[in-house]
Amino acid sequence: MRTLQVDLGERSYPIYIGGGLLNEAGDYFERHQLSKKSPVLIVTDDHVAPLYLKRVEESLGNSGFTTVSKVVKSGEKSKSLEVFEEVMTAAIESGLDRRSVVVALGGGVVGDLAGFVAASYMRGVAFVQMPTTILAHDSSVGGKVAVNHRLAKNMIGAFHQPEMVLYDVDTLQSLPEREVRAGLSEMIKHGLIWDAEFAEWCREHTADLLSLDPDALGYGLTKGCSIKAQVVSEDEKEMGLRAILNLGHTLGHALEAIGGYGEFLHGEAISIGMAAAARISVNRGRDRSLYDTTTSILRGFGLPTVMPGHLEEDQIIGAMMHDKKFKEQQLVFVLPTEIGKVEIVSDVKVEEVRRVISELKEEGHHV
Amino acid sequence: MRTLQVDLGERSYPIYIGGGLLNEAGDYFERHQLSKKSPVLIVTDDHVAPLYLKRVEESLGNSGFTTVSKVVKSGEKSKSLEVFEEVMTAAIESGLDRRSVVVALGGGVVGDLAGFVAASYMRGVAFVQMPTTILAHDSSVGGKVAVNHRLAKNMIGAFHQPEMVLYDVDTLQSLPEREVRAGLSEMIKHGLIWDAEFAEWCREHTADLLSLDPDALGYGLTKGCSIKAQVVSEDEKEMGLRAILNLGHTLGHALEAIGGYGEFLHGEAISIGMAAAARISVNRGRDRSLYDTTTSILRGFGLPTVMPGHLEEDQIIGAMMHDKKFKEQQLVFVLPTEIGKVEIVSDVKVEEVRRVISELKEEGHHV
Repeated sequence: MRTLQVDLGERSYPIYIGGGLLNEAGDYFERHQLSKKSPVLIVTDDHVAPLYLKRVEESLGNSGFTTVSKVVKSGEKSKSLEVFEEVMTAAIESGLDRRSVVVALGGGVVGDLAGFVAASYMRGVAFVQMPTTILAHDSSVGGKVAVNHRLAKNMIGAFHQPEMVLYDVDTLQSLPEREVRAGLSEMIKHGLIWDAEFAEWCREHTADLLSLDPDALGYGLTKGCSIKAQVVSEDEKEMGLRAILNLGHTLGHALEAIGGYGEFLHGEAISIGMAAAARISVNRGRDRSLYDTTTSILRGFGLPTVMPGHLEEDQIIGAMMHDKKFKEQQLVFVLPTEIGKVEIVSDVKVEEVRRVISELKEEGHHV
Repeated sequence: MRTLQVDLGERSYPIYIGGGLLNEAGDYFERHQLSKKSPVLIVTDDHVAPLYLKRVEESLGNSGFTTVSKVVKSGEKSKSLEVFEEVMTAAIESGLDRRSVVVALGGGVVGDLAGFVAASYMRGVAFVQMPTTILAHDSSVGGKVAVNHRLAKNMIGAFHQPEMVLYDVDTLQSLPEREVRAGLSEMIKHGLIWDAEFAEWCREHTADLLSLDPDALGYGLTKGCSIKAQVVSEDEKEMGLRAILNLGHTLGHALEAIGGYGEFLHGEAISIGMAAAARISVNRGRDRSLYDTTTSILRGFGLPTVMPGHLEEDQIIGAMMHDKKFKEQQLVFVLPTEIGKVEIVSDVKVEEVRRVISELKEEGHHV
């Protein structure tokens, strides 16, 4: 078992990473002195509930905690104000009070939804994350919680740090292969923005990671979380540095949006986005090897790095214009300067984006 | 013009209290270096908009700010997730970004609603309060923002401190008399919980305050805000001390709830609640004068201090059981120990509440 401390002053919290942790949830709740007199609300989805809900309920129950649960539908659509209100109703009807804990048992959607409930129920109660996906190693660090508005993703939310993250890597064994690859995309991103050695380690351990080797996974997740934690510690409220975490996201979010959040998984979309960002850097004069190395790591994981031919350039640009990463009408991009380092530039012209879209379509013809 | 600083570390902010301030809104925005490049969203209601919206828009416009506005229906029903979503839609459609400001122009409902929008739009943007009621002198200090859930008041919200409060006392001249009285109820409460001298000053200036004499009003509002600010500074997140602000609220909220938020104004309900709290204290052995003085000050302002005969005891008790001021199934009350001092007790028995309800009904027969 590995423990990683996220350093945020009085809002600091630990991330526990290891096997079998869900069975020990009750012990961890006791260690953190969470209230046994107030009901604990476990929020999860209908894919995760049959696999792990009972395990968590029993562990908490055995330690003397009272639990209630709310199961939402799996998928991004549950990150809505409507479902948010349903969870709130469950919280009120179950008598949650100010010392209650809201648990997110699941992936990023459940984490974001349950986290925003925890942030706003009675103006904020304790929150515990129990991620069950690889992708959630990213979203479980940093305290960003939100639901979507029909006009834009993640527009309604808060910064709300958890009491702890209980990351049971055993749950990852049941993930579909496509989700494994997509989840590893954010892990690789953490190497690309911050730590060339870790990016190289990811490349060397491609096979181990894809086969969910516990040692490699444990190290990779810990390292990924630790990089994110360092960035977040320096910029909790996203005033500057934290934006580097958005490498690949400007274009990635646009691809997710025009695919109706169905064609691409988040990790796939940002993989294409990271390839595009590297290509823009090369077009601006960086060494060609920056693009080649980036795409070869990603491709090794079976992640997409070319632009599907059927996506219209204007549609992609239009979707980017709606994204909140536009700051005062200027096009902000996170661009790599070398492997393990990025810069935030705010003067990327629409023409540069059009060019890279067409270049990545062209690459698609050669693959 | 009076300025009062609310001291909350890096979240500190000033309250400006005086006449004609809405006309100078643009100057104040400039002084606080709010962004001219990002649209300002003014949230107000259909009673306030015809009176003051144009004034604010013009002042901000003359200083080079771009404004958009969202007018909601007047009344507690606008403090819903539904209206919250409508305001969010307006914010997104108007292109608000992270440097935008959300303005609450109106009373407590508009302040709570717009404040929760500001707290959660893109995980938090700047917030400016422009109160137009006396009651809002209370809600504009402390950063509590929320909407109601159909099952309970203020269940969904946040702590979000404003950049500043611009309190134009000229707007109070248009208030209906009943709202003036009810608004002064919270001002008197601030004296009763914290400052016997101020309570006595309120009694001496009853006529001046009711006639909205600018000097008396300016002093009273500043003093009321300043007491609340002291309490909030010591306990921003309501872990302990801040609960003293709930004097009269345990019973008051129940009366509001069973009256369907229509029979009593908030200030009227807590006036009865303050009388009840003083009576419970007397029943527990405090000097009878505590109850007599409390009720005589309140009655001087034309505020109710007896229990209407048609309200069922069981209904009142039932509504209290639903209120979030029950901590782990114990009945928590703020009780006065003398004029200007209160204590928080958590062992008030249901029988004591039944007794005081019947005593206050009895008082009604004598009035």
